Amino acid sequence: MKKRRILVVGGLAAGPSAAAKAVRTNPNVEVTLFEAGDTVSYGICEAPYAVAGVIDNEQKLVVYTPERLREERGIEVKTLHRAEQILPTKHQIIVRDLRNHTLVEYTYDKLILATGAQPRQLRVDGEDGRNVFHLSSRDDTVNILRYISSESPSKAVIIGGGYIGMEMAEALRTRGLDVTLIHRHRLPMAGLEQETRERIVDELQKNDVHFVTNAKAELLQQRNDGKVQHVVTNRGTYEADIVILSLGVEPNVALARTAKIRLGRTGAMNTDDRQQTNIDSIYAAGDCCDVKNIVTGKPMYLPLATVASRAAWVAGENAAGGRAVFKGAIRAIAVKVFGIEVAQVGISSDEAKDAGFHVVTESITAHSKVGIMPDSKKITIKLIIDQRSKRLLGANVYGGDGAVLRANTLGVAIQHKLTIDDIARFDMIYAPPFAPLWDPILIAANQAKKKL
Amino acid sequence: MKKRRILVVGGLAAGPSAAAKAVRTNPNVEVTLFEAGDTVSYGICEAPYAVAGVIDNEQKLVVYTPERLREERGIEVKTLHRAEQILPTKHQIIVRDLRNHTLVEYTYDKLILATGAQPRQLRVDGEDGRNVFHLSSRDDTVNILRYISSESPSKAVIIGGGYIGMEMAEALRTRGLDVTLIHRHRLPMAGLEQETRERIVDELQKNDVHFVTNAKAELLQQRNDGKVQHVVTNRGTYEADIVILSLGVEPNVALARTAKIRLGRTGAMNTDDRQQTNIDSIYAAGDCCDVKNIVTGKPMYLPLATVASRAAWVAGENAAGGRAVFKGAIRAIAVKVFGIEVAQVGISSDEAKDAGFHVVTESITAHSKVGIMPDSKKITIKLIIDQRSKRLLGANVYGGDGAVLRANTLGVAIQHKLTIDDIARFDMIYAPPFAPLWDPILIAANQAKKKL
Repeated sequence: MKKRRILVVGGLAAGPSAAAKAVRTNPNVEVTLFEAGDTVSYGICEAPYAVAGVIDNEQKLVVYTPERLREERGIEVKTLHRAEQILPTKHQIIVRDLRNHTLVEYTYDKLILATGAQPRQLRVDGEDGRNVFHLSSRDDTVNILRYISSESPSKAVIIGGGYIGMEMAEALRTRGLDVTLIHRHRLPMAGLEQETRERIVDELQKNDVHFVTNAKAELLQQRNDGKVQHVVTNRGTYEADIVILSLGVEPNVALARTAKIRLGRTGAMNTDDRQQTNIDSIYAAGDCCDVKNIVTGKPMYLPLATVASRAAWVAGENAAGGRAVFKGAIRAIAVKVFGIEVAQVGISSDEAKDAGFHVVTESITAHSKVGIMPDSKKITIKLIIDQRSKRLLGANVYGGDGAVLRANTLGVAIQHKLTIDDIARFDMIYAPPFAPLWDPILIAANQAKKKL
Repeated sequence: MKKRRILVVGGLAAGPSAAAKAVRTNPNVEVTLFEAGDTVSYGICEAPYAVAGVIDNEQKLVVYTPERLREERGIEVKTLHRAEQILPTKHQIIVRDLRNHTLVEYTYDKLILATGAQPRQLRVDGEDGRNVFHLSSRDDTVNILRYISSESPSKAVIIGGGYIGMEMAEALRTRGLDVTLIHRHRLPMAGLEQETRERIVDELQKNDVHFVTNAKAELLQQRNDGKVQHVVTNRGTYEADIVILSLGVEPNVALARTAKIRLGRTGAMNTDDRQQTNIDSIYAAGDCCDVKNIVTGKPMYLPLATVASRAAWVAGENAAGGRAVFKGAIRAIAVKVFGIEVAQVGISSDEAKDAGFHVVTESITAHSKVGIMPDSKKITIKLIIDQRSKRLLGANVYGGDGAVLRANTLGVAIQHKLTIDDIARFDMIYAPPFAPLWDPILIAANQAKKKL
C-alpha cells in the first residue's frame, strides 16, 4: 500500500507538533517538513529569559534539531527550504531550496500550513539599523545576545508595550541596562483591564523602567556606522545603544494566498474545527490561523504556543486520517512583570460589552496565603460577569504570588460556563503556607454575588 | 416586634461564623454565643507555624476577641460557659457558668450547635504527663510554646502520622529538636494514595525525622516529676523530652445526645442540606457534623475549617430566617511536608472502588514550570477516574511547587463532574516562569485518555 504523503510547511512550533502527531496517528504516513530558516522547533517564548541570562545557555532553547526530528520522530526535515506556491488542483507545492536557489515541486496527499507569524514592522527610517532587533526567531535571540556581549550597550529603547515589551524590559534591566519603553497608548498591555494595566505601569516604574506614554516613534536616527543612536518620537528623543521592536505579530499568509485559502476578518487563515481550510486537503494550524473564542463563539487571532500546539495536534491527526476536533480557546495568558504575576483568562470587559453581554465586574485584593504567614503576598482578582446568566466571562488576576495558577482555575470556570454561584461554592484548599481559609477566588465570587 | 433569639454553642470557628452570618442576614435577631473555654475564634490551623516560630507571635492567631465579636459583629459572647443540656420541647439549654459553677437556663427560638471535635486520646498509662500535648486549642499552643521556651526539650516523640503529625514534625525540626514520629501503619497520611504516602516518608527521612512504622504506643513512662521520659511501643522504646499526640479528632456530640439529635454512621451529627438537625429549630455546623461527599453522594466526616465555615454560613443564615443550602464538599486538603506540597482533592482510589466505580488511575511527573528555567521543580499528579463515565473522581498532587493550586483546578473538575476529555481540553496558561507549554494537568489527562 502506498504511504499517505503529508507535507508540512513551517518548522517553529505548530509544524513539528503537527508532523509528530501525524506520524503517531498513522504509521502509514510519510511526512516531510519544510522550513525556510536553518532551525526548527525553537522555544522562542523562553528567549527573553535567555536574553536576561536567567536561562544561562541559549542552546537550551532548541527543542529538537532537524536530525532529532528525523531520527526520533521519523519526520523528514528540509531546512532552508522556502515554500513559495501552492498548486491546489495538482496537490503540489513549489519550494525554493535556499542553498542553491533551485525550485522543486513536491506532491502531497495532505498539506499542513504552519507558516506562523511575523513581527510587525515600525515602518520608519532607520529601522534597518544593526542594533535594532525583533525577538521572534533563534537568529534574533542569538544576535541580541551577541550584540550585548560584544558591544556592552548601556541604554536600551524598547518600542511597544505588549508581552514581549514587558519581558524584554525586565530582561534588559536584569542585564543592568537603562531601559526606556516607548508605547503608543497611555497604558501598556492592551486587552487587560485598566486597573491591571495601571498596576503594571507602577511595577515598571518601581523597577526604574522609563515608560513613555502616548509616544509614536518617528525616526531611528543612525550614525555613520549603521547603528541607531537616537529614537525620535513625538514625545521627545531618546538615546539608544540597542533598540528592541516589540510591536506584536501578524499572520504569515503569503503562501496561503497563492491557493486562495480563505482568510478571516483577523487576516489569519480561517479553518473549521478539524483545522481544515476551505481548500481540499489543506490543513492549517498555529499563528497563521485564527481560533474560535469559546466565550463569544467568534473567531479571534490569538498567536499563542498553547493554541498552536493544540490546533497542530488536531491538524496532524486529521491529515493522517483521524477525526480530531479543536473546540477553541478561552484565551489564557500570563506574563511576569518584575515582582508580579499578571494573568488573563477569557474576555475583557470591553470585549464583553462589544459582544452584547450585560457586564458586571467585581475586583478584590486579598492575601494569597494566610495573612499572618511571613511570606504572604497580596493578589487582586477582577471578575467579568454576564449579569443575566451570571456566567463568568473573563478575569484578570495579578499580584505577588499564585495569580497565574488561580487564573487557570477561573479559566476552567469560564470554559465550562460556570456561574458566580458555582464559583462561590468551589470547595478549595485551605493550608496556611499555600492558601487562606477563604481563597481569593471565593472572596471575589462572594463579593460579586452581592451585585447580581 | 420581638427579636428572634438565636443561641450558638461553640466559639472556635463554626460558631462565630454562624453567629456573624445570622446577624448579617437579619437585623432583627439577637445572638448569644456560649464557649466553655476562655478564647473564641482562634486560628488553630496556624498553630504548627506558631510552634515552629515561622509565625513569630502566637497572639496573631487570635482572630476575634470576645470583645471584638460583641462590638464589631453585635454578638453577645459568654466564655467559660459550658452548655450541658438541651431541652428541645422547652426550647431551652442549660448552661454552666464555669466561673461560679451555677447553672442557668437560656431560651432560644433557634439553636446552632458548633461544638466541634475533640482530639482522640491514646488511652495508655502516662498520657497525663505534663510534657504530653495535643494541638487543638489555644491552651495547647500556648502550653507547648511555654514548655519549649522554659525547658528547652531536645528530643520530641510525635504519636500519629496524620496532618498534624506532619506539620508538628516540621515545626519541631525547625526548632532544632530531634523528632521521632510513631505511626500505627506502614505509611503515614491514611486516605492519600500509596505513592503519595511513600513520597512523604522519603521527605520525612530526608529531613531527619525518625519515622517508626507499624508501632503502637503502650506506655508513656513518667518520671517522679510527672514528665514522660520514654515512649514504650511494641517496636521499641524512645526517649522523649516532649510528646505530641496527633491521633485525629472525633466529633463532640455529648450535648447533641441530650436532645437525641440523630448521629450518622460517622458518629457526627447528621443534618439536611440546610444544616438543620432532625430536631425542630436546632441547626448544627462544623466538626461536630458530617457533610455530604459530592463525589459519592454519601455523608462523610471531614473536620476541616473550610467545610465548617461554609456549613456555618448556611446554618447562621437559615437560623436567621434565610433559605441557604450547603451542597457538600469534595474534600480538598493540603499539607506542607518540609520541601514538598501535598494535596488531595476528591476521593481516593480505595474509596472509589468501595463506592462501586470502575477505577482507572494515571500518574505522571512533570516540571511545574518550563523545565529549563532555573527554579523549575517537579510535581506528580495522580488521577483517579471512573472508567465508564470518564469522570475525574479524585487526585493527589505533590511535589516542589504549584501542587496545591493545581489541585484546586482539578477540584473544580471533580466538583462539576468533568471528564478526562474535558480536562485534556483545558485552555491553560503557558508562561516560562509559571507554567510549561503543556501544564502537568494536561499531561496527566492526555496520558490517562490512552487508558480509557
